[in-house]
Amino acid sequence: MYTRIPVKLPQDSYDIVICSAAPHARASLSQLADQISPLNLGKKVLLVSNPQIYEYYGESVVNCLMAAGFVVTTHLIPEGEIHKTLDSITQIYDAALENYLERSSTMIALGGGVIGDMTGFAAATWLRGIPFIQIPTSLLAMVDAAIGGKTGVNHPKGKNLIGAFHQPRLVLIDPTVLKTLPVREFRAGMAEVIKYGVIWDQALFNHLEAAERLDNFSEINQELLQTIVTRSCQAKADVVSKDEKESGLRAILNYGHTIGHAIESLTGYSQILHGEGVAMGMVAAGRIAVKLNMWSEQAALRQDALIKKAGLPTEIPAGVDAEAIIQTLQTDKKVKAGKVRFIFPQEIGTVTITDQVTSDLIREVLAEVTCQA
Amino acid sequence: MYTRIPVKLPQDSYDIVICSAAPHARASLSQLADQISPLNLGKKVLLVSNPQIYEYYGESVVNCLMAAGFVVTTHLIPEGEIHKTLDSITQIYDAALENYLERSSTMIALGGGVIGDMTGFAAATWLRGIPFIQIPTSLLAMVDAAIGGKTGVNHPKGKNLIGAFHQPRLVLIDPTVLKTLPVREFRAGMAEVIKYGVIWDQALFNHLEAAERLDNFSEINQELLQTIVTRSCQAKADVVSKDEKESGLRAILNYGHTIGHAIESLTGYSQILHGEGVAMGMVAAGRIAVKLNMWSEQAALRQDALIKKAGLPTEIPAGVDAEAIIQTLQTDKKVKAGKVRFIFPQEIGTVTITDQVTSDLIREVLAEVTCQA
Repeated sequence: MYTRIPVKLPQDSYDIVICSAAPHARASLSQLADQISPLNLGKKVLLVSNPQIYEYYGESVVNCLMAAGFVVTTHLIPEGEIHKTLDSITQIYDAALENYLERSSTMIALGGGVIGDMTGFAAATWLRGIPFIQIPTSLLAMVDAAIGGKTGVNHPKGKNLIGAFHQPRLVLIDPTVLKTLPVREFRAGMAEVIKYGVIWDQALFNHLEAAERLDNFSEINQELLQTIVTRSCQAKADVVSKDEKESGLRAILNYGHTIGHAIESLTGYSQILHGEGVAMGMVAAGRIAVKLNMWSEQAALRQDALIKKAGLPTEIPAGVDAEAIIQTLQTDKKVKAGKVRFIFPQEIGTVTITDQVTSDLIREVLAEVTCQA
Repeated sequence: MYTRIPVKLPQDSYDIVICSAAPHARASLSQLADQISPLNLGKKVLLVSNPQIYEYYGESVVNCLMAAGFVVTTHLIPEGEIHKTLDSITQIYDAALENYLERSSTMIALGGGVIGDMTGFAAATWLRGIPFIQIPTSLLAMVDAAIGGKTGVNHPKGKNLIGAFHQPRLVLIDPTVLKTLPVREFRAGMAEVIKYGVIWDQALFNHLEAAERLDNFSEINQELLQTIVTRSCQAKADVVSKDEKESGLRAILNYGHTIGHAIESLTGYSQILHGEGVAMGMVAAGRIAVKLNMWSEQAALRQDALIKKAGLPTEIPAGVDAEAIIQTLQTDKKVKAGKVRFIFPQEIGTVTITDQVTSDLIREVLAEVTCQA
């Protein structure tokens, strides 16, 4: 039992396959072979993961691939954003070389966004591009990072500055693996889910509002989780299908990310998870939109309430300096001719893009949403 | 005065603009601004070159860009294949960051194939891809490397193993800059020209046969040089337009490259220039084709005579071990399911692809074409 969501692109279309929330994760991940076979890939596979995830799910994935006739090698990268570097990519290259990966060989990412982004970038740049498959194991990777072909690593001075567009051949999602995800990361992923509700899918927003709890895998109704993952993947697939390389519409996915990225960057990508940064960014962006009379205060409060219900922060930590945030915005990839572009909600489910925001207004809102230590 | 050759692709089409062999190189390179303006690029430019080339042509290129309103920063990389590494790319990234390059900013490669490949790869992977322009200054780069979007760097264990497809927005060629190219490199470039004659353009082959000399810029009739560059670019554009990402036809451009790459690799990318390796590779591939009764001996001799006339080697150096070559072929990007694919001529201007070559036959031919020290 699974749901199949096509990501339709001019070239390189592919499917997101979401397993139903079966009681046994291993049973679901074992669908992998059935899903891969029709892709006509070569027999060599390099599975990239981190030690923790591999301990949980590695063996069942490898066994399933080997049973289907694949020759599998595994390369593990230590957990964490701090390892999302060109050095880690070099190590994947070395593993690819040692195992004689060919153009028809496949890299498979088994892990969260960090593993997925790096594996995708290595696949994008090994032999000028080989196939890769995403098996996301975090909520954030399932509903966002694994879909859409954005791959890359961090530069010491900025997140995701180095990267490439390279679409996976398949995204295989088994929501039940979220049972092993740390609760803080589960919440961080929920930030992107809330984002889809605000920018694209009012019905999803309503589902989230109706839920009793959003802050913990074990407290969430499995049917609701399936709905959350499926609708979020559909939202991402819709947007990416309409604008593969972020020339227009796709920019709306960056709602909450502009200020969010700056906060992550200024805290060294270690204190604050990406989703937490996005949560803070959405609160700030929503507030700016209200001050610009683009969004109603009531809608902004509904958004902030959802963020709180998901156990996410609605304030920027006291130590993060507003002027430093404003300065950091200038190095954001989304800057065009020196102007920072912001995504603002107009109503729940609809957003617009503008670069008409003064530093003074950003400063005013940052003061309001920063925690007074 | 210039010739414009369109490279037509599903996305990302662009033009090769070849200046006529005017007496003054600087006058021709100054067409750059006229050619760039219609592309609607951002105002920031990072010019990447090497110190030698920059000394010859850098100032005129920079002045011309600045006069057209661009903000230009220059990043120089030391000369040579030995610097075609991920480390050099990291330095380009740093320059891009320091100069706040945006997604609309442009990297311009002013130099030979090494500079072009690296600048292209940096542009392909900075902010997941920004525009770039090729201004090739070597014959090899003009007729081959600058066209078609193959970008990349070497892995310590193999040439061009790391890379991406990223099409330039413009290729600007001024053949008169070849006057400053070392004669050995001029000859190396001529290997690719001869290749186009063999695989694609019989008329070009005939032009080359009719020429008195091919081994030195100063000895070549300027009109012939213009013909050589134009027909070679057209051949490359034809093939690339039909197969952007080497899924089929484009592989024919690798004629002579399979064994050529192995020789380059085994000699540490320092003793033997790429074009020299290709020359040796064409001699060997031609010989194998003759032994397989796919090509006439007479045609192979005509090819070898052209290679000699261009001042290129027709023998593999004595120190290169045949078994090592055969082993190295296994790590070639073009290997599929462990089988090495060879491109063989059928007649002058027409080739075919096969993976039905035994190691014994390769061994036999390598023995014949290796210099007996």
